[in-house]
Amino acid sequence: MTTGKTVPIGVSARHIHLSQDHVEVLFGAGATLTDFKPLTQPGQFAANETVAVYGPKGSFATVRVLGPARSMTQLEVSRTDAFALGIPAPVRESGKIEGTPGVRIVGPVGEVTVDKGVIVAARHIHVHTSDAEKWGIADKQLLAVRVGGERGLVFEQVLARVSDQFALDMHIDTDEGNAAGVKTGDFAEIIG
Amino acid sequence: MTTGKTVPIGVSARHIHLSQDHVEVLFGAGATLTDFKPLTQPGQFAANETVAVYGPKGSFATVRVLGPARSMTQLEVSRTDAFALGIPAPVRESGKIEGTPGVRIVGPVGEVTVDKGVIVAARHIHVHTSDAEKWGIADKQLLAVRVGGERGLVFEQVLARVSDQFALDMHIDTDEGNAAGVKTGDFAEIIG
Repeated sequence: MTTGKTVPIGVSARHIHLSQDHVEVLFGAGATLTDFKPLTQPGQFAANETVAVYGPKGSFATVRVLGPARSMTQLEVSRTDAFALGIPAPVRESGKIEGTPGVRIVGPVGEVTVDKGVIVAARHIHVHTSDAEKWGIADKQLLAVRVGGERGLVFEQVLARVSDQFALDMHIDTDEGNAAGVKTGDFAEIIG
Repeated sequence: MTTGKTVPIGVSARHIHLSQDHVEVLFGAGATLTDFKPLTQPGQFAANETVAVYGPKGSFATVRVLGPARSMTQLEVSRTDAFALGIPAPVRESGKIEGTPGVRIVGPVGEVTVDKGVIVAARHIHVHTSDAEKWGIADKQLLAVRVGGERGLVFEQVLARVSDQFALDMHIDTDEGNAAGVKTGDFAEIIG
């Protein structure tokens, strides 16, 4: 019994998005993010650039920057990472950083301490408009998505984000990937 | 709509069970594990004793020993921990350690390297015989268990372990707890 609504999984490790202002503070005046490898979503890429981040309890020496630069700097961590940093990051949709905790970010040239922007990204599916129409899925709809195997589970509260700029992909963090026993490139099924 | 089959959750951090032989190697001849605090399951306790464990890639300096001593030494880690150690620990039911990888264990007096015993514990529920009879649950049955909230999900493949020596409690690891946004003392519901 299958719905046929099969979605590839992308497990996101901790990463950071930077504003262009912060790119220049961290990597030097006039610096821009440079392409290391493309991501699944069109136009998005993992940059060659990495930063260190420091919380009150711990730090990570090498956090990958994702490009291109955005309007706001945002650090995305798992809850395991948040405990290690000592930063009480809430579960948030990407971009919704009002009232979230900040972090100290150190690059090879300079450093910046932001007063907000650390989140645990809410699980979500990028859905291309054509898939959304075919499967009857609305933008912002919350879905239930099943993963099989020895750690099989059903993720609820999976936010559908629909755009003709998106490629079909479900994004979960490393805690969620490990809990479900899946890795990037595995598949899940939308069941409701 | 509820089944009424409500189960308290216990999120297990990494920990180790030791054989009495290994207790004496690590803590000295004649040493026994000493009671730090009782656990939910009758007779089980967190010991005052801790060890360090070393994998090919990383280590943990302070891993709590759980008592009493068992017939076999067994290190239980999350998948996140397994990656950090560089030890490819499989998902296993407690006690089923044949063919699992080993680890170097260091105590204040001595050290031992075991050739097996590192597992990611399979999610399970300790069910008292009286609850099992009331709810129609058989020993070794695989259950589906729902957690609500902003990271709500349904754990499948949850192994029921039935005994009149058990107290009702669902055990998941830190990856699973973080993925579901729950902590020890929260509740889940058996839904199938």
